Amino acid sequence: MTTVNTEKLSSARFAEATDAFVEEFTASVTFDQRMALQDIQGSLAHAAMLGKIGILTEQELADIRRGLAQIEGEIERGEFVWSIKQEDVHMNIEARLTDLIGIAGKKLHTGRSRNDQVATDIRLYLRDEVANILLQLERLQSALLDVAEREADTIMPGFTHLQVAQPVTFGHHLMAWFEMLSRDKDRLQDCIKRINVMPLGAAALAGTSYPIDRFMTAELLGFSRPSNNSLDSVSDRDFAIEFAAAGSLIMMHLSRFSEELVLWASAQFDFIDIPDAFCTGSSIMPQKKNPDVPELVRGKSGRVAGHLISLLMLMKSQPLAYNKDNQEDKEPLFDTVDTLLNCLRAFADMMPHVKAKRDNMYRSAKRGFATATDLADYLVRKGMAFRDAHEVVGQAVRLGLESGRDLSELTLVELQNFSNTINEDVFEILKLEGSVALRNHIGGTAPEQVRKAIAAARLQMAG
Amino acid sequence: MTTVNTEKLSSARFAEATDAFVEEFTASVTFDQRMALQDIQGSLAHAAMLGKIGILTEQELADIRRGLAQIEGEIERGEFVWSIKQEDVHMNIEARLTDLIGIAGKKLHTGRSRNDQVATDIRLYLRDEVANILLQLERLQSALLDVAEREADTIMPGFTHLQVAQPVTFGHHLMAWFEMLSRDKDRLQDCIKRINVMPLGAAALAGTSYPIDRFMTAELLGFSRPSNNSLDSVSDRDFAIEFAAAGSLIMMHLSRFSEELVLWASAQFDFIDIPDAFCTGSSIMPQKKNPDVPELVRGKSGRVAGHLISLLMLMKSQPLAYNKDNQEDKEPLFDTVDTLLNCLRAFADMMPHVKAKRDNMYRSAKRGFATATDLADYLVRKGMAFRDAHEVVGQAVRLGLESGRDLSELTLVELQNFSNTINEDVFEILKLEGSVALRNHIGGTAPEQVRKAIAAARLQMAG
Amino acid sequence: MTTVNTEKLSSARFAEATDAFVEEFTASVTFDQRMALQDIQGSLAHAAMLGKIGILTEQELADIRRGLAQIEGEIERGEFVWSIKQEDVHMNIEARLTDLIGIAGKKLHTGRSRNDQVATDIRLYLRDEVANILLQLERLQSALLDVAEREADTIMPGFTHLQVAQPVTFGHHLMAWFEMLSRDKDRLQDCIKRINVMPLGAAALAGTSYPIDRFMTAELLGFSRPSNNSLDSVSDRDFAIEFAAAGSLIMMHLSRFSEELVLWASAQFDFIDIPDAFCTGSSIMPQKKNPDVPELVRGKSGRVAGHLISLLMLMKSQPLAYNKDNQEDKEPLFDTVDTLLNCLRAFADMMPHVKAKRDNMYRSAKRGFATATDLADYLVRKGMAFRDAHEVVGQAVRLGLESGRDLSELTLVELQNFSNTINEDVFEILKLEGSVALRNHIGGTAPEQVRKAIAAARLQMAG
Amino acid sequence: MTTVNTEKLSSARFAEATDAFVEEFTASVTFDQRMALQDIQGSLAHAAMLGKIGILTEQELADIRRGLAQIEGEIERGEFVWSIKQEDVHMNIEARLTDLIGIAGKKLHTGRSRNDQVATDIRLYLRDEVANILLQLERLQSALLDVAEREADTIMPGFTHLQVAQPVTFGHHLMAWFEMLSRDKDRLQDCIKRINVMPLGAAALAGTSYPIDRFMTAELLGFSRPSNNSLDSVSDRDFAIEFAAAGSLIMMHLSRFSEELVLWASAQFDFIDIPDAFCTGSSIMPQKKNPDVPELVRGKSGRVAGHLISLLMLMKSQPLAYNKDNQEDKEPLFDTVDTLLNCLRAFADMMPHVKAKRDNMYRSAKRGFATATDLADYLVRKGMAFRDAHEVVGQAVRLGLESGRDLSELTLVELQNFSNTINEDVFEILKLEGSVALRNHIGGTAPEQVRKAIAAARLQMAG
Repeated sequence: MTTVNTEKLSSARFAEATDAFVEEFTASVTFDQRMALQDIQGSLAHAAMLGKIGILTEQELADIRRGLAQIEGEIERGEFVWSIKQEDVHMNIEARLTDLIGIAGKKLHTGRSRNDQVATDIRLYLRDEVANILLQLERLQSALLDVAEREADTIMPGFTHLQVAQPVTFGHHLMAWFEMLSRDKDRLQDCIKRINVMPLGAAALAGTSYPIDRFMTAELLGFSRPSNNSLDSVSDRDFAIEFAAAGSLIMMHLSRFSEELVLWASAQFDFIDIPDAFCTGSSIMPQKKNPDVPELVRGKSGRVAGHLISLLMLMKSQPLAYNKDNQEDKEPLFDTVDTLLNCLRAFADMMPHVKAKRDNMYRSAKRGFATATDLADYLVRKGMAFRDAHEVVGQAVRLGLESGRDLSELTLVELQNFSNTINEDVFEILKLEGSVALRNHIGGTAPEQVRKAIAAARLQMAG
Repeated sequence: MTTVNTEKLSSARFAEATDAFVEEFTASVTFDQRMALQDIQGSLAHAAMLGKIGILTEQELADIRRGLAQIEGEIERGEFVWSIKQEDVHMNIEARLTDLIGIAGKKLHTGRSRNDQVATDIRLYLRDEVANILLQLERLQSALLDVAEREADTIMPGFTHLQVAQPVTFGHHLMAWFEMLSRDKDRLQDCIKRINVMPLGAAALAGTSYPIDRFMTAELLGFSRPSNNSLDSVSDRDFAIEFAAAGSLIMMHLSRFSEELVLWASAQFDFIDIPDAFCTGSSIMPQKKNPDVPELVRGKSGRVAGHLISLLMLMKSQPLAYNKDNQEDKEPLFDTVDTLLNCLRAFADMMPHVKAKRDNMYRSAKRGFATATDLADYLVRKGMAFRDAHEVVGQAVRLGLESGRDLSELTLVELQNFSNTINEDVFEILKLEGSVALRNHIGGTAPEQVRKAIAAARLQMAG
Repeated sequence: MTTVNTEKLSSARFAEATDAFVEEFTASVTFDQRMALQDIQGSLAHAAMLGKIGILTEQELADIRRGLAQIEGEIERGEFVWSIKQEDVHMNIEARLTDLIGIAGKKLHTGRSRNDQVATDIRLYLRDEVANILLQLERLQSALLDVAEREADTIMPGFTHLQVAQPVTFGHHLMAWFEMLSRDKDRLQDCIKRINVMPLGAAALAGTSYPIDRFMTAELLGFSRPSNNSLDSVSDRDFAIEFAAAGSLIMMHLSRFSEELVLWASAQFDFIDIPDAFCTGSSIMPQKKNPDVPELVRGKSGRVAGHLISLLMLMKSQPLAYNKDNQEDKEPLFDTVDTLLNCLRAFADMMPHVKAKRDNMYRSAKRGFATATDLADYLVRKGMAFRDAHEVVGQAVRLGLESGRDLSELTLVELQNFSNTINEDVFEILKLEGSVALRNHIGGTAPEQVRKAIAAARLQMAG
Repeated sequence: MTTVNTEKLSSARFAEATDAFVEEFTASVTFDQRMALQDIQGSLAHAAMLGKIGILTEQELADIRRGLAQIEGEIERGEFVWSIKQEDVHMNIEARLTDLIGIAGKKLHTGRSRNDQVATDIRLYLRDEVANILLQLERLQSALLDVAEREADTIMPGFTHLQVAQPVTFGHHLMAWFEMLSRDKDRLQDCIKRINVMPLGAAALAGTSYPIDRFMTAELLGFSRPSNNSLDSVSDRDFAIEFAAAGSLIMMHLSRFSEELVLWASAQFDFIDIPDAFCTGSSIMPQKKNPDVPELVRGKSGRVAGHLISLLMLMKSQPLAYNKDNQEDKEPLFDTVDTLLNCLRAFADMMPHVKAKRDNMYRSAKRGFATATDLADYLVRKGMAFRDAHEVVGQAVRLGLESGRDLSELTLVELQNFSNTINEDVFEILKLEGSVALRNHIGGTAPEQVRKAIAAARLQMAG
């Protein structure tokens, strides 16, 4: 069993004759065979409809079903012989079907065209893959919820401008990641609404003169409805661009997670341990672990954004209806799907095993005078004016810096030197635990709120 | 009344001292003053909430309301003095408020930070502008419906590969544009769901120790809910990217409309007349009209895609939570809004006055043997095998080419020479009118279907 | 002989264990094996240098040469067994070498690291491919020169805003394309200067403690010099980005050529005939030819621009020195090379066979009052003020429009009605031939100038 | 003196009539007035040439010079009244010139058109600004050389994967930055070659029938030569895209510098102190300094990449020759120039004042077992096989980890326990100073090499 060579055309082949070169240059079967099962799925629905409206006889319909079933088996077993001569996935399957069952194979093409057929296949394909991506997103979200729960009380420095600003909990930080992924899921769900509209029946561009029943086909294929306009149906690639945009956002999020993991795994931060399976080590430096997976994922964020631009530029200024340019929609789309699935899986596999180095996180938060804002709030609550409170806190921090102590390590007397409104209760909020506990409103970093957020998220995911 | 110089920093200023240069380089007030009214709106809601929870006295609240009302007036009258020293829109307004009402102006800042404030302002701003954009989209859609109705029976060539393929109606073609815009509206509506979440209360990054009521503020500002996570709230710019992606699709659509208008307005196509107001003419060539508006709109499609990439790259790899990088989100966003509003308005103003040259369209469709597919379908319906039908049609077209006649202009005898299954009724479908009338299913180009689609669209828009 | 499965990781494999998944996810050998011959080339030079400085014995050097020669043969014959376990092309070859010759295979790695090795391989690879691309650019330029010479006198409409503006010659138009490609060649030549610098010797990031002779290695590999800084050497990917930018410009040019070919091949323009080998036809519409190759090339312009963005985003914000992210540089680069080679070859093969339909071009130029500007210039040369000349020409064009005649078909009496400064000699410039002949300065459209430009171009290309 | 309102069209103006709206929408004077001086410069050269070939009389030429001198003064003094009615910078100046000197003002337009005029202006403008950018690049390079010299012996950790790998010198690290900027300069110099070609004389698209002397004009304007093809001259925007690509690389480099500065300024790294003028501080946390300038510069890298994409998409598929789309080339170009000038200046001002915290850098390098590779190399030089050497080093590092000591702090006896080939001389290379000193070849991190590199760089910059 030979299959087509799926390598790209290479310079080595520049010796070949023009005709063979052009044939290979313009063929799409090397990549669009990926939609083979969707092509068969679409043909089965189309055939059933043609049967119902009397264009196919029962015998012809039975033959088509038998033939397509056999082809599906051949493809799944890797036995199908793809041919560049047959140009694309549709023609390859049609030719094989005609081999198997004769003229009825050609008759299947009544009332449709490759233009609406490919538009249908790609939507069926993408609908399936978006479902897979949503599963991986949920796996990653579940992993984050578990770690966030485990680390709901773990205190770490909260950064702005990569400077220690205020203490937060590690669980809270991970729930920020969770939120990003929730939006990603929402966007994909919205995208599905526009993917799941059926172009089949638009034929080449204008519809067909056969009395087709597009509602029946749409129902058989699980589409929400047939499309409203045939010219639009064969020329629309919005759904691919919208999906690539949603994918670019997912990858942007993963690049931010990756950046933080890489930072945290550095000797300078030393906040986490990334499991060995996701790193490469060094026999001569056992302490060194290269965070390969986060770095690679970070690097792949540009890849998907590149595909997004590629698709936007592809469609720019194209007159209606179908143009050959559109063949270029598939490779960026396929690679976007692969990249998302792989990167999300890698993160979903990795996150449960990322180990927080709680002491290091705590020490780092403490060293950063992270409760300075709390002291200011404390003074204001005691009635001091903002400006004065800021002045007092600045003096206290300066004393801490000079004497190598955190604010919570200053004595009450020292603090009262700066302001006599300060009482013993100040130490409650000067401690990191007190500081985070006080931020106890929806969205705040208090462990209680984090646990509430986790519970709400679990409910929502179960729903 | 002086205002800040809104020019960009220019090379001429390289003579100035570093401090002044850096102050100007890092300031955002030259562009973020655009959100001034939203900043005031947010402050009013925040103040009301602070009043309710007892942080502001009634007097303070009244003072703040009076002060902000005065500032709003000054801004609307162009009298407000923006200062680069005050860095951004928030500080400018706060400083002016403190000038006007004293220390209560500062107290307004209790329980919030510039990080959540700017995130709130930009969402309020964008929510307003998306509503404006939706209005322009609907204006354009209405214009298209009117023209489509007027041209529901107008026959023109339907193109694939810019080659005449089958006849379509001009109304049908315009309804393809309408469909694209419908998806654009849907995407913006979905985008609003994610814009309309309130970050206020996240404070710098961790929430606040004041007992704020975020649900109250959200309700006052018309947000659907407060955000779930403070770290995410101050670092999230997804909504801007999602909006820019939706905007890039709108502009891509407009670039396709523009391309077609430019083609159709050429002497070679000569399908339409674009009204003078949207073109530049030439005193020495009165027949020449440069379709400036469509060309300019087409050119602007790259602009918005550029902003999309700019925003994606901005956020790539940013560690949480707020970083100064994020200041760069505004200019691309503002320019995207402007570009969309202007381009959509230009099209909405222009389309009602675009005049179809019906005779030219018809002649062009006829010259292209656009009913060849119909003849093939006819033969197949009469029982001929596909392959044979194609052969017959090919011979008929060749005869037409040689004798300079359309298929509908061949005689019955001539046609019967190719196949004796052809009868008098063939002329029904060989005529362009017959061809389009036959494509009479949902999405098809038949005038009846086009009118149905228009009626459905009107209903939906009214709904 | 088995080889690695070069398919992308697919969702089907999500069943596999994490370790195997991560191994495959992070491996690069599925794509970087493309640089195998350059990897061997680099190793041979490195080995020779290690031999000269006494680190390898003569015997070891001979063994390495023998082993690498055998490996090269295995690769060229498709017999080499690539293994994902060995991660990348370097480790695969090193492991095989050690199999073949023992410990000396490992010793080859003295004084280098995979970080500088991959940077060297990719530069050697790209240097080779840029040379191939330059050859294809020159093939296309030669083809354009031949057609331009053949069509140096062929008159066609010159367009601005896709409106007929002035007559030009088709040869002149093609020479505009030639100029674009000349700049492309210049840019690639400039790019080579920055590709052709040798990173080898930078080792992991800091250089090596072995007394290596980088000048010797550079000379053996044909590099212009060793790089100046080891940190920069392993982290720099500028050359890839610069190449992708140059490639994006080439593709943008091809997209413009394609757009024009598609327009000209439409029934409405009907200026050219594109050879059958580059189109798809239709058995039922013999007159219809879909210009597949230009459309596909036009579509591929977005692809390369996407890769450019992908690479820019990849490098954005990366701290020095080497990070795993950089592995993502290869696929966009390889695909850019393939796309450029294939698209340029397709155009170089196609252009000699594109047939100008001279009569149609001429007729179209004439119909457009393309010499109106010439008439204005004529009147000004006779001493008339600009404004008055424009007025006169406008009246003449209006008369032509009304009576269905070109300016050159008006009578002298009719013209003199508008201005008595008009003489018999006016018809010289009103004819298209006279109009183009008069634009006889460097860069002008006069056939004489076009022939001069072609001659100069031939000289330059021969040089 | 009123000037045009340079604000963008805003939604507020949607009340205005279509004609006024379109006039403003299509006008470019709000931004292209920036090329006013170049427009005058081009006109002066064109006028001189028209004088020489006898089209302008001496009196007319003198009038034009006088008029343009007055206009230049008005512009420089901010007194010039720009009018949207006059659409663009060219028409504004021409109209004013005609006001001042009468009909000769119009005559200046003989033999040129706005199409070649704008192409000339933008090249003159860009040539000037690239020179300014090169100056800022050199200022930054000089600053880097000074700091590198000061820190040639300063040892810091060299990172791969943000893990400590080997010691390097801070001077060496800064010289890596220097190298990036050197390539940036080279690219801009190459870009100038393609900017500095004169389109003037191409007229609208085909050249002119006047006997113009393009070589004279080119010489007067300092262009290297007139362009070769008129169609190409008015439609080419390659130089803008090439410049934006070079600018994107510069900004990518600055984003990497910025990322490192931000990292180094964090409490966790604590390698440097960024001067106050380039940060914002906090009154309540005196130890906290937000590295605003590096963050903002990092954020602006996406901006320029966005402009690059905008320009590429602008030109995609445009048929020749001039189209109104091209008006969209200016704003991205101007903003790219501004962004580069400001960011480079900010860095050039900042870098001399960035203070290395040498002790922290040293301590961090030491803590990372950064000389493990050196120990392995040492053992190999003593004749041990690679694999064995790696094993020994791994054991030594493990001992160091367990006992909290660096390799250089282990005793000779302890080391000899792992291998008896180790002698007293091992401590030379185990010390960070010894490790860096050994990497003493071109491109290596040894202080001696860094000083050589600095000296060579100074020579080259002086040359």
